[in-house]
Amino acid sequence: MTLRVNVNADLGEGYGAYRIGDDAAMLDIVRSANIACGFHAGDPLVMARTVHLALARGVSLGAHPGFPDLQGFGRRPMTMSLAEIEAMVAYQIGALQAIATAAGGRVSHVKPHGALSTMAAVDHALALAIAKAIKAVDPGLISLAPAGSRMVEAGRTLGLAVVEEVFADRNYDDAGALLPRSHPRALIHVPEEAAEHGLRMLTEGIILSANGREIPCAARSICVHGDAPGAVALAAYLRCFLEDHDLEVVPVPEVLGEQNAP
Amino acid sequence: MTLRVNVNADLGEGYGAYRIGDDAAMLDIVRSANIACGFHAGDPLVMARTVHLALARGVSLGAHPGFPDLQGFGRRPMTMSLAEIEAMVAYQIGALQAIATAAGGRVSHVKPHGALSTMAAVDHALALAIAKAIKAVDPGLISLAPAGSRMVEAGRTLGLAVVEEVFADRNYDDAGALLPRSHPRALIHVPEEAAEHGLRMLTEGIILSANGREIPCAARSICVHGDAPGAVALAAYLRCFLEDHDLEVVPVPEVLGEQNAP
Amino acid sequence: MTLRVNVNADLGEGYGAYRIGDDAAMLDIVRSANIACGFHAGDPLVMARTVHLALARGVSLGAHPGFPDLQGFGRRPMTMSLAEIEAMVAYQIGALQAIATAAGGRVSHVKPHGALSTMAAVDHALALAIAKAIKAVDPGLISLAPAGSRMVEAGRTLGLAVVEEVFADRNYDDAGALLPRSHPRALIHVPEEAAEHGLRMLTEGIILSANGREIPCAARSICVHGDAPGAVALAAYLRCFLEDHDLEVVPVPEVLGEQNAP
Amino acid sequence: MTLRVNVNADLGEGYGAYRIGDDAAMLDIVRSANIACGFHAGDPLVMARTVHLALARGVSLGAHPGFPDLQGFGRRPMTMSLAEIEAMVAYQIGALQAIATAAGGRVSHVKPHGALSTMAAVDHALALAIAKAIKAVDPGLISLAPAGSRMVEAGRTLGLAVVEEVFADRNYDDAGALLPRSHPRALIHVPEEAAEHGLRMLTEGIILSANGREIPCAARSICVHGDAPGAVALAAYLRCFLEDHDLEVVPVPEVLGEQNAP
Repeated sequence: MTLRVNVNADLGEGYGAYRIGDDAAMLDIVRSANIACGFHAGDPLVMARTVHLALARGVSLGAHPGFPDLQGFGRRPMTMSLAEIEAMVAYQIGALQAIATAAGGRVSHVKPHGALSTMAAVDHALALAIAKAIKAVDPGLISLAPAGSRMVEAGRTLGLAVVEEVFADRNYDDAGALLPRSHPRALIHVPEEAAEHGLRMLTEGIILSANGREIPCAARSICVHGDAPGAVALAAYLRCFLEDHDLEVVPVPEVLGEQNAP
Repeated sequence: MTLRVNVNADLGEGYGAYRIGDDAAMLDIVRSANIACGFHAGDPLVMARTVHLALARGVSLGAHPGFPDLQGFGRRPMTMSLAEIEAMVAYQIGALQAIATAAGGRVSHVKPHGALSTMAAVDHALALAIAKAIKAVDPGLISLAPAGSRMVEAGRTLGLAVVEEVFADRNYDDAGALLPRSHPRALIHVPEEAAEHGLRMLTEGIILSANGREIPCAARSICVHGDAPGAVALAAYLRCFLEDHDLEVVPVPEVLGEQNAP
Repeated sequence: MTLRVNVNADLGEGYGAYRIGDDAAMLDIVRSANIACGFHAGDPLVMARTVHLALARGVSLGAHPGFPDLQGFGRRPMTMSLAEIEAMVAYQIGALQAIATAAGGRVSHVKPHGALSTMAAVDHALALAIAKAIKAVDPGLISLAPAGSRMVEAGRTLGLAVVEEVFADRNYDDAGALLPRSHPRALIHVPEEAAEHGLRMLTEGIILSANGREIPCAARSICVHGDAPGAVALAAYLRCFLEDHDLEVVPVPEVLGEQNAP
Repeated sequence: MTLRVNVNADLGEGYGAYRIGDDAAMLDIVRSANIACGFHAGDPLVMARTVHLALARGVSLGAHPGFPDLQGFGRRPMTMSLAEIEAMVAYQIGALQAIATAAGGRVSHVKPHGALSTMAAVDHALALAIAKAIKAVDPGLISLAPAGSRMVEAGRTLGLAVVEEVFADRNYDDAGALLPRSHPRALIHVPEEAAEHGLRMLTEGIILSANGREIPCAARSICVHGDAPGAVALAAYLRCFLEDHDLEVVPVPEVLGEQNAP
């Protein structure tokens, strides 16, 4: 039986006159879009356009909430109270839900962005605040979370459906965390290597760390980036590679059906 | 049979460390709250707190979308495309819907704020863009609109339920529009006068202009302000005055039931 | 004797992770840079980087203040009080002055951006408020203003040095105003045509309108755009063309010396 | 000979329609104002008004730069690169300088706000980046810094004049740092106690910690708060108390003359 996996990307990251990445090209490749919600990137009109492009291609919609820091693109750690975190995550999900509803679609998953995601991956209280916000807005929303992170644990604790994701073009340390971008081996630039790396994580259930250590993982989704040179080509190569290896590349909710099946 | 009317106020207008008005006191008086959605005022945490205060008192929730202009408190006219207007109104409604859902409540009406409202009151295309956004997000949402304005017309054109509102503490010109705040007689400071003015508009179906002219109106809701000195006292006086004259003061959706009854 | 003219461009229009145009390439061509000051575009770090690039090439620095509307890139008209306008223009000039001083340079001219410029070109009170702000911050600052506009008049009224500018790649109406961008003939795409158009305005003292009418003008500066496809090539062509016709292309302050000479 | 000391407050912390504290009342008491520069609070018009009020009372002007976080009032720690810090501090100083110049005044000192100040008090690299920005904009600017902090050290390292400040209404720990606001004894509410505490730090050169330990200090300035209930009364009491004990309360630059005298 064919294994169903997901390929997703962070999209809709423009703001006003500013554009980042080629959303239309990426939406021809990925099956799920994590759409910026106006705090670290995105504005209502950018969101509406991205939702339209995604729906026209059958790409599933995810909210991609981040810190209220457009200048830092949500990548600068900020210290916020858990009450603020909960309210701001709910706010951003709701904003995208309304834009999606107006376009005839619906939001099916949530994936935090940038520093919010990095911090929540290792901070149980923060992860739980985000998961509580997701559940409070709609308990049917799926949490798309870094494989093995606190976000996975928090989502499961609250009874949310969780899909774990990995990065094909990033190397991991021996604890299963991403090597920081400052590390010389952080990024995998060769498409063939990235594709092999991604395939292994999805099909063998292990992350091969940069040091060669094997870490168990339960990922069913791969995130690809749309904003680097060669990004679209790498994403296209990866998708073809997965399909050539008999994986079916589907939107996030369909992975979940697979995951839960006996 | 008792006539049902509504008293509403614009609330949740703080931002971060900033506070405007005494929301808790006003929420003991009004039956519907128009809650700022983070563009001209309000932030996710302020919204969450206001929603909690309102729900605890059985006050119905309305989204109060405005221009993206915190510095100008949404009172400065801005030129935006209709596509931007639609997206930004949908965004703001959705953000409050999620905050409301997370608190166990729901948004039942929408009322634009400040310059967005003033401009839409006389601009058919703008009014229609706002009404389209409301309908696209949820056709069950009620439009709370200035009596006799283009917003009333636009809402009805699209099949939205519309409740018309007037201001007890503001004088009107002979066309039924508010006298601008710069006019010496714009504001009615004496509670008794404001209450009589309000009662007449609700029960006799006429606006008595500052010049003494009678303009037909179909208002079922009165907006009171919470941010001026004496505002809470005036609002409390008005509500008692209306009840002493055998009106039942109810949330916006209950006015509507009345309005539609044979 | 060689006529001295200026070629300038609006630069430093990125924000955080966002980039617009190729500033380094444009700074190799133009002699003056109008640098966004953080309200409609630009942030402190983008400003600092742009200033460094400009100083390294002997390009003179201008403040390019705009409306506080990053989402609309300062292109959406906003209604602000004259007191707000004065304060916000002073603020933006000062911010760039400090960044320039820290880099060992200094701001020598001011040119409003987008809707602020378009509105001030025809609104005497607004133009005067901007000119007052410039003078109050530093009476030695030069006003770089659209040829024949209210900004020219306001600057001269207050005793500021004024350099008038025209656009080589834009057509004009019979009143000497730019054809709106929506007009089919608004833009001149052919470099040779744009260069001829620009040369005529600088050397013959006339604007040839799209209808063929001749309007007197006293422009000594040409603005080129850096953010459209082919923009860098057009700018480079224009500069060479002007030099081939014996014009000396200099920073804004050096044009002024020429202008004031007997 | 009379000892000269300074009393300062953080002022101009409104934004648009929002107001915090009674700036006019505080400006009748303090001799130096730390004016918010539009990032964590303040906008160009609020800054201009505060500068006018201060100049009319002979109160010296200080720039009060903070993190770009209006929602968090600059109190939420943010992670920014040192290059960003330098640029943003220069930007904010320059913005206030221009507003001050336009009003006929000048900025004489700089004091970071909120989380930026708290972080820089213990982080040498951050303190140095701030001091570098101050010096690069104007080496004549005085650094007003928490007594004994890294900011004092960084300022002196770069050759800036430094005035050290303490808080009359806050208790200190045994290392000479402020007790966090969450500590039960963090705040001193009784005016007489606060005044005695302040007097001791200025005249005896010691901070008496909450535990009774004596820590040497070289403070010549006391910061009072303007935004708490009773704040104006406490500030007024403190100033009278200091004068009754033969201290002369002067603007920051005049303290410095005293400090440098033989």
